[in-house]
Amino acid sequence: MSNQNESAKAPLERFREIIGRIKQYEEILGLVYWDMRTGAPRKGIELRSEAVGALSSETFKLSTSPELGDLIAQLNEPASLAELGEIDRRLVEETAKEYERNRKIPPELHREYVVLTSQAESAWETAKENDDFAGFVPYLEKIIDFNRKFIELWGVKTTPYDTLLDMYEPGLTTVELDRLFGELRARLVPLAERIAKSEHQPDTSFLEGTFDKEAQKAFSKLILKEMGYDFEAGRLDESVHPFATGLSPGDVRITTRYLPNDLTSALFGTIHEGGHALYEQNIMPELAETTLCTGTSMGIHESQSRLWENMIGRSLGFWQRYLPDLKKLFPGQLDHVSAEQFYRAINVVQPSLIRIEADELTYNLHIMIRYEIEKMLFNENLNPRDLPVVWNRKYAEALGVTPPNDAQGVLQDVHWSGGAFGYFPSYSLGNMYGAQMIDVAKRKLPDLDRQVAEGRLQPLKEWLTEQVYRHGKLLQPSQIIERISGKPLQSSYLCDYLEEKYKDIYRLD
Amino acid sequence: MSNQNESAKAPLERFREIIGRIKQYEEILGLVYWDMRTGAPRKGIELRSEAVGALSSETFKLSTSPELGDLIAQLNEPASLAELGEIDRRLVEETAKEYERNRKIPPELHREYVVLTSQAESAWETAKENDDFAGFVPYLEKIIDFNRKFIELWGVKTTPYDTLLDMYEPGLTTVELDRLFGELRARLVPLAERIAKSEHQPDTSFLEGTFDKEAQKAFSKLILKEMGYDFEAGRLDESVHPFATGLSPGDVRITTRYLPNDLTSALFGTIHEGGHALYEQNIMPELAETTLCTGTSMGIHESQSRLWENMIGRSLGFWQRYLPDLKKLFPGQLDHVSAEQFYRAINVVQPSLIRIEADELTYNLHIMIRYEIEKMLFNENLNPRDLPVVWNRKYAEALGVTPPNDAQGVLQDVHWSGGAFGYFPSYSLGNMYGAQMIDVAKRKLPDLDRQVAEGRLQPLKEWLTEQVYRHGKLLQPSQIIERISGKPLQSSYLCDYLEEKYKDIYRLD
Repeated sequence: MSNQNESAKAPLERFREIIGRIKQYEEILGLVYWDMRTGAPRKGIELRSEAVGALSSETFKLSTSPELGDLIAQLNEPASLAELGEIDRRLVEETAKEYERNRKIPPELHREYVVLTSQAESAWETAKENDDFAGFVPYLEKIIDFNRKFIELWGVKTTPYDTLLDMYEPGLTTVELDRLFGELRARLVPLAERIAKSEHQPDTSFLEGTFDKEAQKAFSKLILKEMGYDFEAGRLDESVHPFATGLSPGDVRITTRYLPNDLTSALFGTIHEGGHALYEQNIMPELAETTLCTGTSMGIHESQSRLWENMIGRSLGFWQRYLPDLKKLFPGQLDHVSAEQFYRAINVVQPSLIRIEADELTYNLHIMIRYEIEKMLFNENLNPRDLPVVWNRKYAEALGVTPPNDAQGVLQDVHWSGGAFGYFPSYSLGNMYGAQMIDVAKRKLPDLDRQVAEGRLQPLKEWLTEQVYRHGKLLQPSQIIERISGKPLQSSYLCDYLEEKYKDIYRLD
Repeated sequence: MSNQNESAKAPLERFREIIGRIKQYEEILGLVYWDMRTGAPRKGIELRSEAVGALSSETFKLSTSPELGDLIAQLNEPASLAELGEIDRRLVEETAKEYERNRKIPPELHREYVVLTSQAESAWETAKENDDFAGFVPYLEKIIDFNRKFIELWGVKTTPYDTLLDMYEPGLTTVELDRLFGELRARLVPLAERIAKSEHQPDTSFLEGTFDKEAQKAFSKLILKEMGYDFEAGRLDESVHPFATGLSPGDVRITTRYLPNDLTSALFGTIHEGGHALYEQNIMPELAETTLCTGTSMGIHESQSRLWENMIGRSLGFWQRYLPDLKKLFPGQLDHVSAEQFYRAINVVQPSLIRIEADELTYNLHIMIRYEIEKMLFNENLNPRDLPVVWNRKYAEALGVTPPNDAQGVLQDVHWSGGAFGYFPSYSLGNMYGAQMIDVAKRKLPDLDRQVAEGRLQPLKEWLTEQVYRHGKLLQPSQIIERISGKPLQSSYLCDYLEEKYKDIYRLD
């Protein structure tokens, strides 16, 4: 027995060493990406991209090395696994899966792809600034071609697009997504129609005006602190497209974007990214030096950003507590607005052009459009050059609005420039996971509504830490939601929540 | 012949590949250090330091690999060298020298040192903030011990400290430095005495007051632009200790520190770092992917920062041109000050505590003190715990001032926390190089004084680019100064320059 023990120990040590190195390089790469998005000088981007390509390919080499393969083969044996603690066992399983995936990609192809996407993000920023879709197309075409190659190498699941979906939400399929989106459509479209016809449209006039940027920043910081975001383990910056990035639990950075004519954009953007950040800051320290130190899936990650943004940040209680603070920062601009009025205004349902500024209800239509387009790109060979036409047509059909230009249309999101095809559905999954979690939270913390209305946000944060955050990638998404609710993911919780909320706001019977 | 040609070609290609990779990793590490100094969250520092250690040790492994050694051995043969272009030849020579140095350090020792200095810089920041020298001593002791080990491994030159000096200024010795500082002392101390006795002391009262930080920032940016600093290839941030870092010619970052009660600190700090940055931004593109893409020595680097800061930034002509811009940014605060008065005020000679705020003349005494202390640490085994006592005594003796606390004394500079023992003399070397260069520039650009007075700073920048910047590490420091002036480095130019300047300001006969 002790022999077996020792034979399992040396490989484990070496295995953890390699995993630790991969994690360290990923942390550094994460920092370089953060820098590229928050103000790296334009003229340095080309060489920086090459450097990123070099370090990524070294990381890739580590994660596909024959040595790691041998270690996995040794450790992934039942006898060895039985000797391992929970963390190591899961780490071996997860690494084995990643190893299989990565080994199928030739290193040179990987390196080229990293350099390409690194340059493409800058190209996208420029294209968006100049409303120049044509300038972005060459990058997009190449990125899609690369992804087609990857799909072939990984193996086509039911459809090529299914192969991509599985990367962001293990096991997710187009069949399942078609069903979930179908259910959402069945209940939410009629709801939207009733809302449009309601005579009780919220007054949003007080949200118009010019809102001082420094005051917006101050309020963003205040709310992040209230949520329990630790500024000693993170920082808030600005970028064209807001994001959160967890470099380590001690360094989880948020960016936002302040619009002078829009009070709510930066505000809810910040809370959204703050939700992501709470997740990453509260992963248990035992995982810190492993590749399990991250969110378990994009859907679960988005559940946290969307839950904090909408179910907390757009709740009545939240504004009963925080509207006075907001008023103080914008003297004279919101003096006569009540919490109830503010709550109704920020929840106005209004078909719009920009996903990240959409209301909670139509948001899912923005996602459906992207989901359908991605399916067309990979399953029906839609030509990327035709994207603006398809995009604008789908927006007209589903939302009744037409982008005046590509900057406000097909160029609005960063995702595709980074090759993140298959990511978008995560947002709607996140809405569904979040509603299912909050349903349980309200029973486990029966006082929750009052806590929020009194600015006591920590009990919720602690409950979510216990249920979700601390586990990092130690639990699978399905385990997370089943541990919490005793059920797999369902669409009904989101529909129930939205119906209840909007019936009240729009005074539907 | 063609056979020889080909046998030299394959190794060269591989050699350039390895050098390129080393350069890329150095660029990324430079960015991580920049981040750690400009606002990386405190709680992430420990893991970040480990990650830096990992990537540094990978870089170190590359630069000490047997493969690189073999390539150097092949390429460093007369027959092979003859086939190489100028850049490759110099790259092989320089790499061979570095290889010899690096091979003497065990990789594990190197890794530990990188982690240590990475943590020590944060510890220094905290210690300086809290005036807690005792909290910093354990780091300092370890760093000094490491350096003692390195000296032993590299081989003691005439004295242990000589081994360190050679790193920053190839060939520089304590004998040479004792001579140069001796000459400076012989001419500058009497000058300082005459100045102290002068009845024409400048009025500096208008430099007192509170100066808006945003206005300070705006002026810093204005002057950087005038100098020709390219903001598309760099950015200006804040840090406790100002610095410039050249990640690539397309990304050269500057930091500064704004003091609300001191107009000149950030201003001259920015110009100083701007001088460093002009050097790094203007290295010829052909060197960009090699380790020659950096300043040729710290002395030459400091010549550029000090030249721009003092010989341009503290000249009368400069303020004839830019004082009106400054006045506009601080309305009511400098209205009745003339360029002549301003010029005299910013050149007041005043023994002081803080090196980076010292006047041009006594600055060299600050350097002498550090030089003497470093010699004591390495050649006389001074105990680091005794540093505050020694520091304060030397300041009392040389400058007649005593620091009220260690934050304003021995803890003021970042250098030692990064292990940069032997660096400080570079500043005085820089003053001497700079004066020798400007002496020639005034003859080559006979119009120089008027150009500065009219805000035409580009001819000087272009001349310095041609003579210094573009060559990066392609030329040795001695080649640079001899190409420019036809002579090796001499102290007399600096003395002449200072005597002429201060005789005028203090109305010395």
